[in-house]
Amino acid sequence: VRNTQPTSATQSWTTTMSSLGTAYARVRAQTRELCRPLAVEDYVVQSMPDASPVKWHLAHTTWFFEQFLLKPGLADYRVFDASYDYLFNSYYDAVGPRHPRAERGLLTRPTVEEIVAYREHVDEHMQRLINRAGRDAQLDARIELGLNHEQQHQELMLTDLKHAFAANPLRPAYRAGAPRGLGSPTPLLWQHYPGGLQEIGATADEFCYDNELPRHRVYLEPYELASRLVTNGEFLEFVRSGGYATPSLWLADGFAHAQAQGWSRPLYWSTDLDALFTLAGMGALDPAEPVCHVSYYEADAYARWAGARLPTEAEWESAARLHALDGNLLESGVLQPVAAPGTAALEPGPQQFSGDVWEWTSSAYSAYPGYRPAAGALGEYNGKFMVNQIVLRGGSCATPRSHLRASYRNFFYPQQRWQFMGLRLARSVAG
Amino acid sequence: VRNTQPTSATQSWTTTMSSLGTAYARVRAQTRELCRPLAVEDYVVQSMPDASPVKWHLAHTTWFFEQFLLKPGLADYRVFDASYDYLFNSYYDAVGPRHPRAERGLLTRPTVEEIVAYREHVDEHMQRLINRAGRDAQLDARIELGLNHEQQHQELMLTDLKHAFAANPLRPAYRAGAPRGLGSPTPLLWQHYPGGLQEIGATADEFCYDNELPRHRVYLEPYELASRLVTNGEFLEFVRSGGYATPSLWLADGFAHAQAQGWSRPLYWSTDLDALFTLAGMGALDPAEPVCHVSYYEADAYARWAGARLPTEAEWESAARLHALDGNLLESGVLQPVAAPGTAALEPGPQQFSGDVWEWTSSAYSAYPGYRPAAGALGEYNGKFMVNQIVLRGGSCATPRSHLRASYRNFFYPQQRWQFMGLRLARSVAG
Amino acid sequence: VRNTQPTSATQSWTTTMSSLGTAYARVRAQTRELCRPLAVEDYVVQSMPDASPVKWHLAHTTWFFEQFLLKPGLADYRVFDASYDYLFNSYYDAVGPRHPRAERGLLTRPTVEEIVAYREHVDEHMQRLINRAGRDAQLDARIELGLNHEQQHQELMLTDLKHAFAANPLRPAYRAGAPRGLGSPTPLLWQHYPGGLQEIGATADEFCYDNELPRHRVYLEPYELASRLVTNGEFLEFVRSGGYATPSLWLADGFAHAQAQGWSRPLYWSTDLDALFTLAGMGALDPAEPVCHVSYYEADAYARWAGARLPTEAEWESAARLHALDGNLLESGVLQPVAAPGTAALEPGPQQFSGDVWEWTSSAYSAYPGYRPAAGALGEYNGKFMVNQIVLRGGSCATPRSHLRASYRNFFYPQQRWQFMGLRLARSVAG
Amino acid sequence: VRNTQPTSATQSWTTTMSSLGTAYARVRAQTRELCRPLAVEDYVVQSMPDASPVKWHLAHTTWFFEQFLLKPGLADYRVFDASYDYLFNSYYDAVGPRHPRAERGLLTRPTVEEIVAYREHVDEHMQRLINRAGRDAQLDARIELGLNHEQQHQELMLTDLKHAFAANPLRPAYRAGAPRGLGSPTPLLWQHYPGGLQEIGATADEFCYDNELPRHRVYLEPYELASRLVTNGEFLEFVRSGGYATPSLWLADGFAHAQAQGWSRPLYWSTDLDALFTLAGMGALDPAEPVCHVSYYEADAYARWAGARLPTEAEWESAARLHALDGNLLESGVLQPVAAPGTAALEPGPQQFSGDVWEWTSSAYSAYPGYRPAAGALGEYNGKFMVNQIVLRGGSCATPRSHLRASYRNFFYPQQRWQFMGLRLARSVAG
Repeated sequence: VRNTQPTSATQSWTTTMSSLGTAYARVRAQTRELCRPLAVEDYVVQSMPDASPVKWHLAHTTWFFEQFLLKPGLADYRVFDASYDYLFNSYYDAVGPRHPRAERGLLTRPTVEEIVAYREHVDEHMQRLINRAGRDAQLDARIELGLNHEQQHQELMLTDLKHAFAANPLRPAYRAGAPRGLGSPTPLLWQHYPGGLQEIGATADEFCYDNELPRHRVYLEPYELASRLVTNGEFLEFVRSGGYATPSLWLADGFAHAQAQGWSRPLYWSTDLDALFTLAGMGALDPAEPVCHVSYYEADAYARWAGARLPTEAEWESAARLHALDGNLLESGVLQPVAAPGTAALEPGPQQFSGDVWEWTSSAYSAYPGYRPAAGALGEYNGKFMVNQIVLRGGSCATPRSHLRASYRNFFYPQQRWQFMGLRLARSVAG
Repeated sequence: VRNTQPTSATQSWTTTMSSLGTAYARVRAQTRELCRPLAVEDYVVQSMPDASPVKWHLAHTTWFFEQFLLKPGLADYRVFDASYDYLFNSYYDAVGPRHPRAERGLLTRPTVEEIVAYREHVDEHMQRLINRAGRDAQLDARIELGLNHEQQHQELMLTDLKHAFAANPLRPAYRAGAPRGLGSPTPLLWQHYPGGLQEIGATADEFCYDNELPRHRVYLEPYELASRLVTNGEFLEFVRSGGYATPSLWLADGFAHAQAQGWSRPLYWSTDLDALFTLAGMGALDPAEPVCHVSYYEADAYARWAGARLPTEAEWESAARLHALDGNLLESGVLQPVAAPGTAALEPGPQQFSGDVWEWTSSAYSAYPGYRPAAGALGEYNGKFMVNQIVLRGGSCATPRSHLRASYRNFFYPQQRWQFMGLRLARSVAG
Repeated sequence: VRNTQPTSATQSWTTTMSSLGTAYARVRAQTRELCRPLAVEDYVVQSMPDASPVKWHLAHTTWFFEQFLLKPGLADYRVFDASYDYLFNSYYDAVGPRHPRAERGLLTRPTVEEIVAYREHVDEHMQRLINRAGRDAQLDARIELGLNHEQQHQELMLTDLKHAFAANPLRPAYRAGAPRGLGSPTPLLWQHYPGGLQEIGATADEFCYDNELPRHRVYLEPYELASRLVTNGEFLEFVRSGGYATPSLWLADGFAHAQAQGWSRPLYWSTDLDALFTLAGMGALDPAEPVCHVSYYEADAYARWAGARLPTEAEWESAARLHALDGNLLESGVLQPVAAPGTAALEPGPQQFSGDVWEWTSSAYSAYPGYRPAAGALGEYNGKFMVNQIVLRGGSCATPRSHLRASYRNFFYPQQRWQFMGLRLARSVAG
Repeated sequence: VRNTQPTSATQSWTTTMSSLGTAYARVRAQTRELCRPLAVEDYVVQSMPDASPVKWHLAHTTWFFEQFLLKPGLADYRVFDASYDYLFNSYYDAVGPRHPRAERGLLTRPTVEEIVAYREHVDEHMQRLINRAGRDAQLDARIELGLNHEQQHQELMLTDLKHAFAANPLRPAYRAGAPRGLGSPTPLLWQHYPGGLQEIGATADEFCYDNELPRHRVYLEPYELASRLVTNGEFLEFVRSGGYATPSLWLADGFAHAQAQGWSRPLYWSTDLDALFTLAGMGALDPAEPVCHVSYYEADAYARWAGARLPTEAEWESAARLHALDGNLLESGVLQPVAAPGTAALEPGPQQFSGDVWEWTSSAYSAYPGYRPAAGALGEYNGKFMVNQIVLRGGSCATPRSHLRASYRNFFYPQQRWQFMGLRLARSVAG
């Protein structure tokens, strides 16, 4: 959950839809759609402190609209349930105290049915707010923020569910998957970028979070990026060659963590290294698919083993601006990274910049020069997390298309790997 | 879950019913009845490692019959689902590996509906087994054990639910309670017992677990027991006089534990000491009701503060044999301890020996001289827990009547307090 | 550190010496003597929270005399250093706050030299107190208590040093040991005891701690005890037959603890099972020596594997009263258990009742009927530890001879094994 | 311990001494000199896993020369003790396994005397190596690295000792301090820097670690730096205004950590906020002295409270290059930060860029573009720590003068505060 710089941007994605009301309705419907395959029991569980129950996601995204739009924006609005501020505030200290994060899975009540009623209550009043005359740009920006916020949680619902299902020895499937053919990987090519004085950060013509601002100059040495993501097959070589047991390949903290956790392969890979758990249940490990569910520590170790490194976020963004952002996103419905198309040799441009897996960069998540968090509680959306985390770029197979942009900065702790996370190699070159 | 010495006892409680089939049906129906007030979400949650989800209790008690009766007893029996051995085995190493106890709350599947189907499948075959010609005494004893086992879990379902509901800031009620009048406590009188060479342990004429055998002699010094349980009002005096902050009143481990946990009052009491959480939601703290949800450490400290001590289990049992076992048990439907009747002054015999709260004794849970665990996996029911735990006696307001007997030994760790646990004072006297 | 019932006993061991002053001088000199092989560095370290630095033992035993004898007993006594009450109080809440136990090893100051000066200061004043006219029996009893207390710490100094040296990859020797021949074990015979109504507890003619009182009756079924301790060779069979990986042999808590700690053999045994660490450094594992440094959990599992059990403390004491208490104690200077003499076949009485290793009983440490702790702070010596611990009997190769008696109750937690701890088998027999 | 890029630099500090032999002798003598005030006991203790015993520092720095110079460089060299590789290797996986870091304080042996002998042995052979004909530049660079390494440990010896002494309720002084007058703070002025394309990193004319290379361009927006460090008096205002209890001032991880640890003031400040612990014992809190022993989290929160921010390391270094590096370093002998000279108003240049306290920057510790770790085991000196840590700049009152340079990058975890750590404010300005 992160916040935007209130902005008067007018060309952002939502307004390319016929109206904000339509955008609101589409995003909210998308959330409900994602819940369709679930049993009531599936909404309740929190399989680790990093994850949240689906029920909580449904309520928290709704609370966000109630708290930041309806309460300040509709004079006659009556809150659905006064206790929800405590139950469904995620981390907004300015709003007030809240239920401990690690105990979200202990709440059997309110029931799913009650939360669905909560959503409907808020939806009704939000449409009233949206349809009201005299809407201003600041209000629109906040609604756009709320929709982006809900889209983030759509992705989290899927990754949290995947984690919970993987913890169940029955390995239930979220839904049946399309048959996956085992492909052969596209050759890895290197794409050259000259560097120099570049600009990164959000441009004025699109919605963004406050952490993507200000747009600013950075100086880059020349560099190269791999034409596609690292694959399962490549990562398997690392595993088989003893990569997890070779400290010289790892950051010291990474090796210590991997040892303490007993890591010997990516999350969700089977012990015998020939299958993996997906949202469609257990399936064969396809060597051509991008490797997924690796931590920063593992991504960094792999890159060192491969004689390369991870890109900085500035390198990534400068390159991404040159290429179209399109790929295997939520709308593709695959919910699993897919192999890069085999035509790469013919069209040597880089692939998979968008979708499939979030790409670990080597950049610690920090403030851009001149960064100013949004005012009020929404200033907590991004800024207070700018330590100990690493930036990821590019979106995943669980990211809605309209949620992405080249300047988008995702961030996670270096040991986390339950998101759809993978990597693209980079290397420095002589100028 | 604990096991019995297979016995040919013929006067046990089940056979006082018209048939074993009736007993089976009644116990299983009782379990379903206890679930009636629940939402689907309420079945899923495990609020601490000591507790289990209701769903798990429903499946585990059913698995017990499948594993120990149907598999060995019905040649043509087909298991309902082969994975349930792994999911619903509690702690029987001889049966095989099992899902980690602390992760029972992570399982959203099988759903409640699937588990209800499992119960029906097993019930059908159990009735077939029971109705079969040529039943033998050993088989009957095992069925009786399975029913006692399920009764234990009926109590655990209620205490685990209470714990989960108490962890919810909404403080949901399991069901509405009868109005509770605030009574005035019955005076505490002392009942004298001469001691000497006594016999304790189960007698031949009733069902028992293996840990109640062999019946054997113990030598007791003369002693006295309080005529009733310690009340909320009395315990409140201990709290208000600084009992929780006075190390000289406590066992060293107890004080350290209480400090580390920040204990300052019994579990479920409100901070301001005038209300408590019950299965009917928050209610006034009645000074006449027995104090409940105190650990052994707190019970021991209170007794020392009161210039008394806890009884040994031999003292308790010798006394209990002299008095009728009747009281506020599950069948009363109160699900909360109630004040001792005010007629105590007229009939000076001891009260509340049975029901209301399990009474902490001062006896570590250990083997009786000559103890032999049952053969096979069922030998794990009791014997392997004979260290670090303390014996409690007398049943509680959540214990089924037919489950109790004077020789019954319950046991918990000295720091546990989520069961309906309280205490009765004892003291030594000059011979 | 535990406390005595102040008593006017006049035949206790100290008064069999020419005088209390001589006893005091002998015990204090013994402590210094035990330190002779040490480097200054060896006094400082605390290798785990259960252990204490030698420096701390030296100061704490001295503080005990200062606190409980000199301050109340000598009107003109000036404390050596006012800060020592805080630094060297072990666990006497009635005396005041104290340095956290787990941080005893962080104190580089006071230096060893300063603590030696402290000892000399207190010795000088203690001799003045002892030589004073008008000494009373209560004072004498307290001095005796102080000396017994110091003797307990002599044993702890050795076991704590052993633990610290074992944590050092250099495996330093406390001092050179006598050459140890590898013997052949004496056959194990069973000694019968008829049981019945017995008396246990301290008799009036000797010094005792308060936890050995009151002497009282217990009823015992007939039983048998092994004629000697369990040996390394026997325990090795248990290890080699997979004992540590067989849950059915263990108490549930014991197996869980052993697994969590990765235990696969007694403490101080080498991985290849043919050597062990002693106070004389690494040495061959002698199959005839008593097994040592096993926890209660391991002792209990071994006994079950051997088709036997551990004795209760009442069984042990009733038997021990019939036999002379003599054996391989501190005075033998071996500091390691030794094989039972091979003459057992000729003289079939039980051996090794005293010395070599403390013998785990099956009895939880608890109050004798009518137990009353000593008054004041010294009441904390024993009583507040009466939960979660198990009684051991018989003394070890590090126990001073004059410190032992048949009624002596040592106690440790079931998972502890850094003391000289072993076991003797028992079994029940038909009456 | 970190490593250098082997370099043929010829103007580095050591060669400004008459010879490398002299430099070696001076640095090694400095280490001994720092130990002069210690008792033997003071060498042994490790007060937390982050710290090491003085004895270990003495041995490890010596082992560094033995391992990386004598073994490869002197064909006839015989190691002093083969076990020292295991005991005194810090973290060089390429060298081999090692004693666990958190257990360094358990080693009473080798004794201090033995380690002094080890140092003399190595010194003798190092002089032989240095005096040998045919020395090459690579060898010289390694010796220089070893000396820098030892200088780092000189600072650590002091900070680790301070931590251990602070854990002792006696609060011993390392040595008497000069009388400290309570000054009045110099006014804080803002110094403007225009930014633009700048170069940072080590220049070719001085010794450096590999993490200071390559020298490279960075683009900076215009910025301002405070003319002096933040003082105790200023930080006290933050404390008194409730800064530690105001989450909006903190990074989320920082607030959580501070709450979990119960932080309410800098390390070593007294509860009543008017005294602090120094290497000269407890002393008055001087409001004019730089605040010291604050974590990154506290420094960041203070800066936000003050309406400013921390500088990036590039901002700091660009500015530092413009000013002389001189100040209150180890050689001043004060071992405590001192107030900025009061003449600031007259000479408005920035003060305290060097010495007093290491200054937290806002930069995560990471690789410079094109960074290449040194070859072999020495490549582990720096590179493998490039995650989760924050860069500090400028040296402290415990840093040797010859050890510092403008490009020097120190790094610690954001929660650490036992080093001499403080902060200087920065702010962004409109271009």
